[in-house]
Amino acid sequence: MKKDYCKRKDKKMRYDLIVIGGGPAGISSSIYAASRGVKVLVLEKEQVGGIIGKVSTVTHYSALMEKETGSTFAKRLETQALNAGVHIQYETVMQVCLYGTEKKVVTDQNTYESAAVILANGSSPKNLNIPGEKQLLGKGMGLKALKDGNLYEGRNIYVVGGGDGALKEALYLAGFARKLTVIHFENKLGAIYEFTKKLELLENAEVKLEKNLTAVFGKDRVEALELTDVVTGEKERIEDPGCGIFTYIGTTPNTELYKELDLVDHYIPANEKMETKIAGVYAAGDIREKQIRQVATAVSDGAIAGINSAAYILSHGN
Amino acid sequence: MKKDYCKRKDKKMRYDLIVIGGGPAGISSSIYAASRGVKVLVLEKEQVGGIIGKVSTVTHYSALMEKETGSTFAKRLETQALNAGVHIQYETVMQVCLYGTEKKVVTDQNTYESAAVILANGSSPKNLNIPGEKQLLGKGMGLKALKDGNLYEGRNIYVVGGGDGALKEALYLAGFARKLTVIHFENKLGAIYEFTKKLELLENAEVKLEKNLTAVFGKDRVEALELTDVVTGEKERIEDPGCGIFTYIGTTPNTELYKELDLVDHYIPANEKMETKIAGVYAAGDIREKQIRQVATAVSDGAIAGINSAAYILSHGN
Repeated sequence: MKKDYCKRKDKKMRYDLIVIGGGPAGISSSIYAASRGVKVLVLEKEQVGGIIGKVSTVTHYSALMEKETGSTFAKRLETQALNAGVHIQYETVMQVCLYGTEKKVVTDQNTYESAAVILANGSSPKNLNIPGEKQLLGKGMGLKALKDGNLYEGRNIYVVGGGDGALKEALYLAGFARKLTVIHFENKLGAIYEFTKKLELLENAEVKLEKNLTAVFGKDRVEALELTDVVTGEKERIEDPGCGIFTYIGTTPNTELYKELDLVDHYIPANEKMETKIAGVYAAGDIREKQIRQVATAVSDGAIAGINSAAYILSHGN
Repeated sequence: MKKDYCKRKDKKMRYDLIVIGGGPAGISSSIYAASRGVKVLVLEKEQVGGIIGKVSTVTHYSALMEKETGSTFAKRLETQALNAGVHIQYETVMQVCLYGTEKKVVTDQNTYESAAVILANGSSPKNLNIPGEKQLLGKGMGLKALKDGNLYEGRNIYVVGGGDGALKEALYLAGFARKLTVIHFENKLGAIYEFTKKLELLENAEVKLEKNLTAVFGKDRVEALELTDVVTGEKERIEDPGCGIFTYIGTTPNTELYKELDLVDHYIPANEKMETKIAGVYAAGDIREKQIRQVATAVSDGAIAGINSAAYILSHGN
């Protein structure tokens, strides 16, 4: 039986507002709410910045620094929140109790209470779920572009995925790779013009379309890849000891704990004010059901959720 | 009779997308659209950055630089758009012809055509419409906070308005003023906690509530102010030769040319995709009917309008 942490009787710490997730949406909401005079806690399971904090280059968001990396961007987010008086705790949320005037959030370390909650814990990159993926993780499989790029200087790098997230890192990793190969299952790339155009201009890049990566082989490191043609089903084995493989085939929203919110395709529905169906509970960023998922829209969701949750808290007595 | 510029037969320059307004919404939309491979023109009547480009401090927008001024922020916006391949022309729009597959935008200098248009020309600060306002503009009346602050070092400064925009500049101008007086017509300030709290802590600041500034007097410079009590109607004349007056009592949307868009309280209605009622015409930023007007929401509107307008253009053949 699943343990009900909400009934745990340990000491509870109280904030006006708890924000779950320290990506752009969560940090933005915390900054706006704090400026309205409410006491805000951000709970982050790993590091401030979310997925965008790990990318090689942040693009298109207005007033970025030139050559902005995920890391410099995330650092500024964190500093800005701390300067605004926001508390950040690095804990993993286990359970939430969202109904009623007093919300409860239970982490692996503490229990917190608040008048309002903003759900901003985004999405997680999907796994390929293929043989060898787990065993060879960190051993050539599952490169972290920004961190691992220079470790693969002069070697072959494979990028699995044809969307913006994959191609942006392909462009970055091509600067280190002897040869860069993009593997994508569709018959054309799905990324924006800017990225596909830049890729076309690279001399060391190749695109393999209508192929899936279906297995990786190796003992202590990736030694070979298996590609499967999506049309013919034909398999091809590529021997490439020491190569690196970066994968980005999309994300899944982190909504396992929020099933009571009538998820739509696993995303949380919220209105223009970022209100969910439960009073005092807001959703912001990639976790929300919406058309466009970009840093810019996450930051805006956060601003709106932060401002409205603060107004809710102040009108309900904090 | 009003001249119909749309029928003018001069040489027309063609873009895929014309963005009217070079504030955060317009610049953001231009950057996203350009990254999708469409040819974008931004028409800006004055300078990139819009209202925010003139503030003393940009606040709360995620990943700002520390101590970011409107001027450094606007400069980064401009550089980013130019680097993205966006064309910026400094011209004033006189007329738009929005219906049909080929849109037309007539400026004081040229006529442009495009497949789609984004209306992002925001709003303009309201005037007080009081005796002496126009005559003494630039002579003590209508300070530009960032530009004029240090010219008023050691003098008295008056700030008219009690919202965020007024109080933020009051905080900045208090750093120069001998005495800083905020004049507001309501019985309490309407700004966020952060700004009101900071103002309370200043030793040289005073707040006069339930007062309107109803006249300014002077020959070559402001010499005196007239305040009127909103409750009693009593008038008070303050002699203060050489003082400075900063006003910020809200804004009016710049929608005079867009009346066919079924304006709501002078704002343009648009859906979640930033589409107006006319195909190929989008609205983004402060000009749009919406709940929260912040740099963050303007940038997001721009991202959404830029992405959707580019998709519209590419699907209709550019």
